[in-house]
Amino acid sequence: MIIEQWENIVMAKVRVHNFLVSLDGYAAGPEQSLENPFGVGGMVVGDWFVRTETFLRMQGQPGGSTGTDNDFAARWGTNVGAFIMGRNMFGPIRGEWPDESWQGWWGLEPPYHHPVFVLTHYQRPALPMQGGTTFHFTDEPIEAVLDQAFEAANGKDVQIGGGVHTVQQFLRAGLIDEMHLAIAPVLLGRGERLFDNLGDGPAGYQVTEWVGTPAAQHVVLTNYRS
Amino acid sequence: MIIEQWENIVMAKVRVHNFLVSLDGYAAGPEQSLENPFGVGGMVVGDWFVRTETFLRMQGQPGGSTGTDNDFAARWGTNVGAFIMGRNMFGPIRGEWPDESWQGWWGLEPPYHHPVFVLTHYQRPALPMQGGTTFHFTDEPIEAVLDQAFEAANGKDVQIGGGVHTVQQFLRAGLIDEMHLAIAPVLLGRGERLFDNLGDGPAGYQVTEWVGTPAAQHVVLTNYRS
Repeated sequence: MIIEQWENIVMAKVRVHNFLVSLDGYAAGPEQSLENPFGVGGMVVGDWFVRTETFLRMQGQPGGSTGTDNDFAARWGTNVGAFIMGRNMFGPIRGEWPDESWQGWWGLEPPYHHPVFVLTHYQRPALPMQGGTTFHFTDEPIEAVLDQAFEAANGKDVQIGGGVHTVQQFLRAGLIDEMHLAIAPVLLGRGERLFDNLGDGPAGYQVTEWVGTPAAQHVVLTNYRS
Repeated sequence: MIIEQWENIVMAKVRVHNFLVSLDGYAAGPEQSLENPFGVGGMVVGDWFVRTETFLRMQGQPGGSTGTDNDFAARWGTNVGAFIMGRNMFGPIRGEWPDESWQGWWGLEPPYHHPVFVLTHYQRPALPMQGGTTFHFTDEPIEAVLDQAFEAANGKDVQIGGGVHTVQQFLRAGLIDEMHLAIAPVLLGRGERLFDNLGDGPAGYQVTEWVGTPAAQHVVLTNYRS
């Protein structure tokens, strides 16, 4: 049993997928709101993604593109047992929760089907949804949240979602093993940059996959220290 | 004659080619010096370029790659009649010229073969080189330098070189018609960003070419107002 646990710890990874970046480096447009969860203009950087078979299937719809864009999109959630996201990925509300009516962007049955840890300074009771997703709200340090997520994932990988500041926190701490980002041929002009607030950059990472399509340049960064 | 002049003015373009950018958006590494004209680490972002047939031919050497990377590289200088560059592209010296012994990075016969305008606050006499290149040193406003360059180009295009601040000046003024940049799968972590100091971004530009290779993502921005 001890060996089995050790193997899980060694093998399980922390991964980021489908992180959308504009040509000028912005991960999301400014002025996030209920109408614009990716900020003004932010959705155009995900144009390749919303056309994939994977995305449409997540929405319960048929059709969509196959090929390279979809191959990258489909890694999202595969062999993932727990998810960590920033509060802005969970919803547009800031500060104290006015009540508990907001249940995330994803409807009654979110596409996670496993525990999701939402980083927030404002406590809320755990929120179980249909289909196996439970949102847990926590203001513990990211290392402690990651421990809980690994335990919840039970040997599978932990996926980290946005927003930018959440990913930057984990990158700074060197806790992400593998990160897929997709650069779109679009200029946003302003917003939040992925490669900011990292000191001298995402130390310890190198590019291990680099595949272009007409809609996006797919990049995988791997932490060679992990 | 008037009509001919007018046609030249309408047809001739301001172009940027082979502008090298890292994955995290840096155009050049920090600490430029004689040993490191692109700054520490900066040359790795041009790895695809130095392997092309075009680059080797510019150095008087045989061989080199053909294909997409070389196709983009070869646009450099084609149908160009004058060049404008910042002082840091001309050399590593800052402040007053100690003497006139520095003649640029390119040896006795630079690969321009036409007038080159060097933007600097420190005057120097024009410097004619072998093969048709003459360096002119000027501290006039960029619009005035561009007028002189168009006149010198005699109907051909004007090419703008680096560094970053020179390109940003022309981008801010909307004076660049067409800009090719090449993103390399490399993280620099620090340096000078192309897409900084542009207010809300390079207004009026859109992506008109987007071609990936294993070594670089080639992007052409076109000013749709021009």
